[in-house]
Amino acid sequence: MRTIALMTDFGSNDNFVGVMKAVLFKVNPYINIVDISHDIPPQDIFKAAFLLKSSYRYFPKKTIFLVVVDPGVGSKRKPLIIQSRDYFFVGPDNGVLSLAADEDGIKKIVVIENKKYFLQPQSSTFHGRDIFAPVAGHISCGKDIGLFGRPLNSIKKLYLHQPEEKRNILRGKIIYIDRFGNLITNIDKNIFQRFTQNKKFKIKIKNRQLYSIVKSYQAVKPGKLLAIFGSFGFLEIALNGGSALKYLKAKIGTIVSIE
Amino acid sequence: MRTIALMTDFGSNDNFVGVMKAVLFKVNPYINIVDISHDIPPQDIFKAAFLLKSSYRYFPKKTIFLVVVDPGVGSKRKPLIIQSRDYFFVGPDNGVLSLAADEDGIKKIVVIENKKYFLQPQSSTFHGRDIFAPVAGHISCGKDIGLFGRPLNSIKKLYLHQPEEKRNILRGKIIYIDRFGNLITNIDKNIFQRFTQNKKFKIKIKNRQLYSIVKSYQAVKPGKLLAIFGSFGFLEIALNGGSALKYLKAKIGTIVSIE
Amino acid sequence: MRTIALMTDFGSNDNFVGVMKAVLFKVNPYINIVDISHDIPPQDIFKAAFLLKSSYRYFPKKTIFLVVVDPGVGSKRKPLIIQSRDYFFVGPDNGVLSLAADEDGIKKIVVIENKKYFLQPQSSTFHGRDIFAPVAGHISCGKDIGLFGRPLNSIKKLYLHQPEEKRNILRGKIIYIDRFGNLITNIDKNIFQRFTQNKKFKIKIKNRQLYSIVKSYQAVKPGKLLAIFGSFGFLEIALNGGSALKYLKAKIGTIVSIE
Repeated sequence: MRTIALMTDFGSNDNFVGVMKAVLFKVNPYINIVDISHDIPPQDIFKAAFLLKSSYRYFPKKTIFLVVVDPGVGSKRKPLIIQSRDYFFVGPDNGVLSLAADEDGIKKIVVIENKKYFLQPQSSTFHGRDIFAPVAGHISCGKDIGLFGRPLNSIKKLYLHQPEEKRNILRGKIIYIDRFGNLITNIDKNIFQRFTQNKKFKIKIKNRQLYSIVKSYQAVKPGKLLAIFGSFGFLEIALNGGSALKYLKAKIGTIVSIE
Repeated sequence: MRTIALMTDFGSNDNFVGVMKAVLFKVNPYINIVDISHDIPPQDIFKAAFLLKSSYRYFPKKTIFLVVVDPGVGSKRKPLIIQSRDYFFVGPDNGVLSLAADEDGIKKIVVIENKKYFLQPQSSTFHGRDIFAPVAGHISCGKDIGLFGRPLNSIKKLYLHQPEEKRNILRGKIIYIDRFGNLITNIDKNIFQRFTQNKKFKIKIKNRQLYSIVKSYQAVKPGKLLAIFGSFGFLEIALNGGSALKYLKAKIGTIVSIE
Repeated sequence: MRTIALMTDFGSNDNFVGVMKAVLFKVNPYINIVDISHDIPPQDIFKAAFLLKSSYRYFPKKTIFLVVVDPGVGSKRKPLIIQSRDYFFVGPDNGVLSLAADEDGIKKIVVIENKKYFLQPQSSTFHGRDIFAPVAGHISCGKDIGLFGRPLNSIKKLYLHQPEEKRNILRGKIIYIDRFGNLITNIDKNIFQRFTQNKKFKIKIKNRQLYSIVKSYQAVKPGKLLAIFGSFGFLEIALNGGSALKYLKAKIGTIVSIE
């Protein structure tokens, strides 16, 4: 039972995701399908790339990630299969696969070209259904990815902005906000520890200051702000029992600095 | 592994969908369940019928479609099983199954009456759980649909409004709007080509005009309107990189005419 | 094929639910996963407990319910496995499991402590992924729950408020509101029948009165209020073809009395 993981910006009002799963099960009924998220804001490639990078390593080896956030559907952007050390990624060449595949280590890239595996007639607006899903289904059957097209040397890449170190200030920013209103920064534990070197520090966000990293949300009183290394592996600003997002009126890009 | 596809207007806040799946797996754990959508607006039978018609043919043969958009639950409306050429449909006799089943070709209709297959005690408000799900589960085990009730000759039908041709104007309308704000008309490719006969044409929606059909969203500049044959098989009005819905303030029923 | 049922307050925007399923399939690919709901309002333990109680009995025996509504994650609240007569429950000891487990009959309680089964490194903010999911996965493989930690005698409990009987008035209240705007009270069929004893009665909610219990939503005219015993097993106030919630501007806690 191979796992196929899906992420799209298709939402849940239409039939787009269901139809992709239909195509997958038509090709291979002996798979487990997992939805990572379908509520990526329309065409928000960075958010999808970040969530994929934060998710892939928890999946069984040989999982196939089928990612359709694809504003360039029907244009010249290439449809890709990437084989990394432990996984397979299928989706458009717009950077959405790059953070995860790069981190895991890219071993092989294929441009999907073999129409034998496409649904016919093939639409120009829904390659998720007509190209990516059938190809992912066939990969789950154990087909060699070389069958689907020609090899490629490099893909379009996105990068996580690294925090900037200037004099004795480390300037990071909010790169993701979760449903609880937790504010996830781009400052990971290694960067933080190398910078603070176990000395006293001050975390600034908007006009607020925090002087410690806690181990759980409930380490501070209800309604109080806190800083914590969260499940994404990054420093997060949170509020016990509430939403730091609403409390601070922060947003993606808000500066979080360490002094 | 038979596939059972679900569509309801139950949303995701309550436990209704989860409980239907519980009942399905209790009857037959060796099935694949696919959600088409559960965000049909409450009791919007037409939208559900349209999405079912746009989805069914992508599913494996013998898939059972379990559709519960059922404002008449507990009243005299009949619970149905329809066997079509390649599929099975289970749901209320209010037209919701008719567009898909008719297109595929109805072979047999059964009114569900055999209480042996119902959950007991049976509620009068949730036939999805108490009648339709257990029956769909038993069909997936290979039971003949004649076991569940008596044959019926005809079902309640819905119709897609066809565009009207008058002098040299083809008057269609918006029948569906997807999450990206793409406006799907009732003008399919055949009707369009028969009407325009490869001559020059003008597409009018609200006070806008379009003079060509493009092959991809990116064939026009960002922020520009376009007309395209989309994945539903109908003419769509879209906006590259944005929402035609917001841009045109169109709605279901807005006229789209071809001259 | 064991079933694992999931309920969380994680919503669908992030990758939290997908990552928990990834962990489950990594431990055991031969399971069926059912989502009860992930749209529990953040940290609304009572709503989750009520939905779990309303759902569990429809699932196959030996289903494992993995419930993560966990405002105390990372604090001293205990991670639990409860074995009841027919089911297993995995989640935090904050009462969320108690309504269902108590009703089914608790047979054994274990505090999860054996780190051998945890994901490493273990976060302090996402025990759903790092503790509860791997443990649930291993239970689905048939492992004895004694392996995961030490036995416990009792759990934190929630209670459904019972309606109050005073002179000839039975005072209940709205405890749940579903997506259709149906208002579910805490008055179950037994309590109602014992109180009314087949005599005439009057149901009061806000400044409205109802004099009968109907069998289906369509037993009254469209736009009219009605009282019905719904699929949760409780008295519900509903509106044929609309939302009693909007019509009455009721809310959780609104009094419903029977005279």
